[in-house]
Amino acid sequence: MVDVYDAGALGRPEVHIEGGVRAPAGLVEAVLAYESARAADDLATLSDFFVPSADTLRIDADGLLVGHDAIAVFRGSRGAMEPRTIVQLRLLLAGEDWLVVSVNAPVSGGCGIVTQLWNSSSGRWLVRASHVTAPSRATDSRVWRVVGSPLVLGATHGPLAGHTVAVKDLFAIAGQRVGVGSRAYLAEAPVEVATAPAVQILLDAGADVVGIAQSDQFAYSIAGLNPDYGTPPNPAVRGAIPGGSSSGPASAVALGQASIGVGSDTAGSIRVPASYQGLWGLRTTHGAVSLEGVAPLAPRYDTVGWLTRDGGTMRDVAAVGLSGAPDGVPSGIVTTRRVVASPVIDAVATDAAREAVSAVVTAVVGDGGPGVVDLPNSRELFEAFRVTQSAEAWRSHGAWVEAHPGALAPDVEARFAWAQAVTPDRERAGLEEVSRLAAWIDDALGDDVLVLPSAASAAPRVNLGHERLDVLREATLGMTSVAGLTGRPALSVPLAWTDAGPVGVCLVGPRGSDLALIDLALEWQALVGVTPHSPRVVPDGGSGARSSDRTTPPARA
Amino acid sequence: MVDVYDAGALGRPEVHIEGGVRAPAGLVEAVLAYESARAADDLATLSDFFVPSADTLRIDADGLLVGHDAIAVFRGSRGAMEPRTIVQLRLLLAGEDWLVVSVNAPVSGGCGIVTQLWNSSSGRWLVRASHVTAPSRATDSRVWRVVGSPLVLGATHGPLAGHTVAVKDLFAIAGQRVGVGSRAYLAEAPVEVATAPAVQILLDAGADVVGIAQSDQFAYSIAGLNPDYGTPPNPAVRGAIPGGSSSGPASAVALGQASIGVGSDTAGSIRVPASYQGLWGLRTTHGAVSLEGVAPLAPRYDTVGWLTRDGGTMRDVAAVGLSGAPDGVPSGIVTTRRVVASPVIDAVATDAAREAVSAVVTAVVGDGGPGVVDLPNSRELFEAFRVTQSAEAWRSHGAWVEAHPGALAPDVEARFAWAQAVTPDRERAGLEEVSRLAAWIDDALGDDVLVLPSAASAAPRVNLGHERLDVLREATLGMTSVAGLTGRPALSVPLAWTDAGPVGVCLVGPRGSDLALIDLALEWQALVGVTPHSPRVVPDGGSGARSSDRTTPPARA
Repeated sequence: MVDVYDAGALGRPEVHIEGGVRAPAGLVEAVLAYESARAADDLATLSDFFVPSADTLRIDADGLLVGHDAIAVFRGSRGAMEPRTIVQLRLLLAGEDWLVVSVNAPVSGGCGIVTQLWNSSSGRWLVRASHVTAPSRATDSRVWRVVGSPLVLGATHGPLAGHTVAVKDLFAIAGQRVGVGSRAYLAEAPVEVATAPAVQILLDAGADVVGIAQSDQFAYSIAGLNPDYGTPPNPAVRGAIPGGSSSGPASAVALGQASIGVGSDTAGSIRVPASYQGLWGLRTTHGAVSLEGVAPLAPRYDTVGWLTRDGGTMRDVAAVGLSGAPDGVPSGIVTTRRVVASPVIDAVATDAAREAVSAVVTAVVGDGGPGVVDLPNSRELFEAFRVTQSAEAWRSHGAWVEAHPGALAPDVEARFAWAQAVTPDRERAGLEEVSRLAAWIDDALGDDVLVLPSAASAAPRVNLGHERLDVLREATLGMTSVAGLTGRPALSVPLAWTDAGPVGVCLVGPRGSDLALIDLALEWQALVGVTPHSPRVVPDGGSGARSSDRTTPPARA
Repeated sequence: MVDVYDAGALGRPEVHIEGGVRAPAGLVEAVLAYESARAADDLATLSDFFVPSADTLRIDADGLLVGHDAIAVFRGSRGAMEPRTIVQLRLLLAGEDWLVVSVNAPVSGGCGIVTQLWNSSSGRWLVRASHVTAPSRATDSRVWRVVGSPLVLGATHGPLAGHTVAVKDLFAIAGQRVGVGSRAYLAEAPVEVATAPAVQILLDAGADVVGIAQSDQFAYSIAGLNPDYGTPPNPAVRGAIPGGSSSGPASAVALGQASIGVGSDTAGSIRVPASYQGLWGLRTTHGAVSLEGVAPLAPRYDTVGWLTRDGGTMRDVAAVGLSGAPDGVPSGIVTTRRVVASPVIDAVATDAAREAVSAVVTAVVGDGGPGVVDLPNSRELFEAFRVTQSAEAWRSHGAWVEAHPGALAPDVEARFAWAQAVTPDRERAGLEEVSRLAAWIDDALGDDVLVLPSAASAAPRVNLGHERLDVLREATLGMTSVAGLTGRPALSVPLAWTDAGPVGVCLVGPRGSDLALIDLALEWQALVGVTPHSPRVVPDGGSGARSSDRTTPPARA
């Protein structure tokens, strides 16, 4: 039967009830009371409408939330909801429960639909599970600054035909502006007349550019936060930061909206988002890929890199991307010696990250595990890297920063303020220290492959707080600067999991060993049995708790 | 309890069952058998898994499908599905039914989730309702060619601040190309150096341009089909064509992805998609809005127009857009005389469309209804319009068409072939006929407001077939050419509904009466009680049947 309810400001929904029966007492009223609480942004009442159980479910485009409390945490963090009216309700009887499908009309247009399983065994009507579809957006501004269909068409044929590329907003694309993650910078940026060679080489190989993806401002962060456009989601760990600064390309690839992310890695900006989101990420040998048409941060350390979901795609894009390496830069070295680890570097990682990576390395390296090398401690590496990187960053952008007070994100602003304070004397001393440390590392590693966690931990929660985030950041940078200081390539491979999400296994090889690292990682992946398209979904409600407690990746079909 | 199933190529899902009970016999197997049938694209088996009932439901981002048969029709038309593995199943017991939430990992990345209500009362496990969330796309290429966050930022303040604009792919935007709905045309198009004044005036008034939205190729159609990018969805009538040629801006506005669509109307390209999608759509007085920087079709008839969800926004954008009307073009006439109708024009509309519009006019025009005017019949109007429009279309684009054989959509190609055959003599005769008909119409209408359906029917189904579509097309063009031949403004207002979806009430006024028509329509809307944000959702399974049979819009809160 069909009824029309007058629900006041909530609309006049038609109510369709399966099988000609009447609606049970209070059910439609409960649905409408829930909508009223939603309209009033009354979070306590909304929470009260969900069964207080660890099995209560909520599903939307961002994934699955499990448990009443996880749903409440999410609800508290999502911000204001758009007003909507209810157009139609459809009720299906299921034992003592009712499945209610409600079609709504948000004030900004389009159509939303919510499916809820309601139960009254507690004496009042409560939701056991809710599946929400909101109207689709033109694009996700947190991930993309510009998107096309495609934005730039690649060559008809080539080794990358069929691939789709998300380009970090540092790279010039003819006809587009470079925004470096800042609306203020974008507003004054000229239209580019030429496409950066690092992008053009992929187009020439048949890949299409889908669009320009977001970046931390000036690429001067590894968190992935961006107040101008919003923080890109981390589909591997709901509620966690995406990692940066190549945050947009990483999220685009993890979400399946592009197959290749093109980014830059100065201090970890490819490896960290790859680690946090369960992707493959390669920082290339310094100087091997052209930085022409790429906004600089610290040229001494800046490199181009790629993000992919699987190793085969990484192998293909790296082969293309490295094919233009200039004379004098080693490339195509296809042999590496032995695998080594360095406890003094790993020491700054969390136990969970270190153990997860260690378990993978133990599993794949026979004969007593990896060799051990003596490296400088990561605190020394971080300090030398920070001083010299900062001096270059200020030279790259200090004038702009001084001319635009208040334009930057707080963390990036603080970093530039620190950079401005680096005196020439201090930079000189830093460069001497860099030389000493790089020589030490090169001497210790030679042609070995150093294995370490790509980041100090799994992806931190968005709401972790600055102090703890800074501790993790400095620990991560201490580890990533082994490659930075020496210009060595570094590959993050999604082979390790902690309770809190994936951690990349990072392989640092001799300069020019980029492709050899990928081949080695593909061998390792075959050994540990993770499929190229292994699911990376970590359904979670923001508590950090996980039902399983695995330190090695689960075997998958 | 938690189990891990080995489902072969479908993955190794963890199965979580609420409350520690065991999964009922055959349920998980049924879920996996359903997935196997999906992987094999076995539509018959998929259909068999849904309860054969008129109450069976399927929900996805495009809306609600009701009834087993409607779901089967949809399934048959959607094309191949992407492979996916199952990561996790969560089972909730609901009486004799089970709610099953399955998390999947599509091969192209991201995460999908399906919630299904399963029942075994028939002796085997069948689905009663299914709610599907697929991974989100970078953008919907059927709707958008380029999207930004935003693509162009408008002035900080102004009467249109907060509004978002979808610009039809005929208008120049500095830094972007004009693609006229054709990939082949786009490939050779230069980057524009200046933004079309019709777009710039909205930016200056504070609106942001979200992106460039799709068009029928060369704007030479009113259907909204586009083989290069796909046909934009019609969110008002699922499974129906969107109407064109301003199809992308119309769908973007209807979907809530922009608040204002900017398009062109030569022969109905604003009014028809407005009618089909339940939007407000204004074809402006010929010459009142600059066509500089807009790809021409037939300059004698080309106009700029707007699409909005509500009349208030239409009033605001029209006031801004018309403020630059050149001297000599009447604008701002705020009085109109009486409302008239013309049975000889309406005769080509379907009974349902004519009656729905007539009911609205009867309801709002007191004192015995509208006056009746004697106009040329719509067949004459269509023929005179077609000959003269085609001759101009060939002059605009014939050289390109001849140089690009095979590049066009079949319907547009056929139209250009017809246009090529219009001889100078035939065009001259057509122009004389146009003069005669326009004088007749102007004499008959004077300052009256002619009311007629905006299109000959509600939106036709996508699979209607060319013959029937052509009949409806010619009928619609016979009606739309009243405004085209005389340069009069015409406003389509979403006040009428048929069983098959909305039909616009079209008001054609004297030249310069654009704003007066909007004011009149706002009065009418207040009289018939349709809210500015009235839901436009017509859940439908492709059968065309509807549960209610209303010829006037339903009263809404």
